[in-house]
Amino acid sequence: MIQFYAPEIEKTLTLPESDSAHCTRVLRLTAGDEISVVDGRGHRFRCVITEPHAKHTHIEIAEREDLLKPWKGRVTVAIAPPKNMDRLEWFAEKATEMGIDRIVLLRCRRSERKEVRCDRVEKILVSAMKQSLKGVLPELTPITLLSDFLKEDFGQKYFGYCDADTPRLLFTEEVRPCSDVCVLIGPEGDFSPEEVEMCRKAGYIPVTFGDARLRTETAALFAVAAIHVINQLSSQ
Amino acid sequence: MIQFYAPEIEKTLTLPESDSAHCTRVLRLTAGDEISVVDGRGHRFRCVITEPHAKHTHIEIAEREDLLKPWKGRVTVAIAPPKNMDRLEWFAEKATEMGIDRIVLLRCRRSERKEVRCDRVEKILVSAMKQSLKGVLPELTPITLLSDFLKEDFGQKYFGYCDADTPRLLFTEEVRPCSDVCVLIGPEGDFSPEEVEMCRKAGYIPVTFGDARLRTETAALFAVAAIHVINQLSSQ
Repeated sequence: MIQFYAPEIEKTLTLPESDSAHCTRVLRLTAGDEISVVDGRGHRFRCVITEPHAKHTHIEIAEREDLLKPWKGRVTVAIAPPKNMDRLEWFAEKATEMGIDRIVLLRCRRSERKEVRCDRVEKILVSAMKQSLKGVLPELTPITLLSDFLKEDFGQKYFGYCDADTPRLLFTEEVRPCSDVCVLIGPEGDFSPEEVEMCRKAGYIPVTFGDARLRTETAALFAVAAIHVINQLSSQ
Repeated sequence: MIQFYAPEIEKTLTLPESDSAHCTRVLRLTAGDEISVVDGRGHRFRCVITEPHAKHTHIEIAEREDLLKPWKGRVTVAIAPPKNMDRLEWFAEKATEMGIDRIVLLRCRRSERKEVRCDRVEKILVSAMKQSLKGVLPELTPITLLSDFLKEDFGQKYFGYCDADTPRLLFTEEVRPCSDVCVLIGPEGDFSPEEVEMCRKAGYIPVTFGDARLRTETAALFAVAAIHVINQLSSQ
């Protein structure tokens, strides 16, 4: 089933340009055809095309359905974007498929990348949401200084920290199922000692994801997968 | 720490061309410098460079150490390569970082991709092994017909199957920790009904990875992550 994304569908009864083009040009759908549209805020609509158009296809809503996310608790990952944008982009895609509520782009002292074009990442979030048939679009927070982000409050707070000399707990043992979790993942060069201290003071617990040395984006995705595995195991 | 890969280091006492170039041209290491070399079969060697050379750098072995993999049981994923090679390649990289023993490239009836250049994937396995400081190179099995692969025997056998009408078990609930596991992941178009029957007859259990619809390569990586999470939880 192809899923369309139109954040304002209830107001406008119209598909945005990109989805209109895909609907009419690529799929060659026409008046009377049924499509499924999500608004990215947890609603799915069964719609009937009234006026196909390459730029603004008009529809009629036949049915509105709540499409709740299948996991409990909010999953937030705050990651220092790796130098190579592809690595951030696949993390965004895979985390969206597996299930994430919010991705925060962190600016740390040793960040290799200080700026990120969010529009590219947004596009990836949207297509991954459509592709995995979800109804909620993950929230993307543009580059934010670690010190500013630490002011926000969350349920469980962990940070992945590489320095093997520091005592760390095993993330999979610590994380509690079905509640809000925020995981910080530092840059390739790791958090600076000052940043580690800041994180601790803000109540973040230093964790390891096991014996493997993982790249920034791999650690972040492993954390997301681990949260879902632990939620699944607990909901039995 | 930079890790070099030289499968025959004990015999040849020489770094292969690519690693020699990296060692001398990129890192500008020279005679007397110490390097760490793995053979991909679970051994790490502390070596001293005797003759730096862009194509064949000679070394002396100062110390030989067993570098056992940090997880118990063999993790095998047999995956029908997606149409887009990048997706297979990043699965290979990420699975190697997280930890996998063997990747099998499956040819299924609905496979979009019938051939894969294994040398490219091999390169990725090697660099991911180096990067994640592992000493064992995952085994890569070139394109194999599903029917042939099913003749092999494994411990726990599961296959990810999308058809929601078929009753499936939740993988994370079924998989038992620290033992050999083989997971089959079908092509974008899913296993054909005949293939599903073949898998069942061969003792494979149809599983789901949760409520999210995952791409081929995401399902495969989630399975690998789940196995490690469950091993970590059990080894407490």
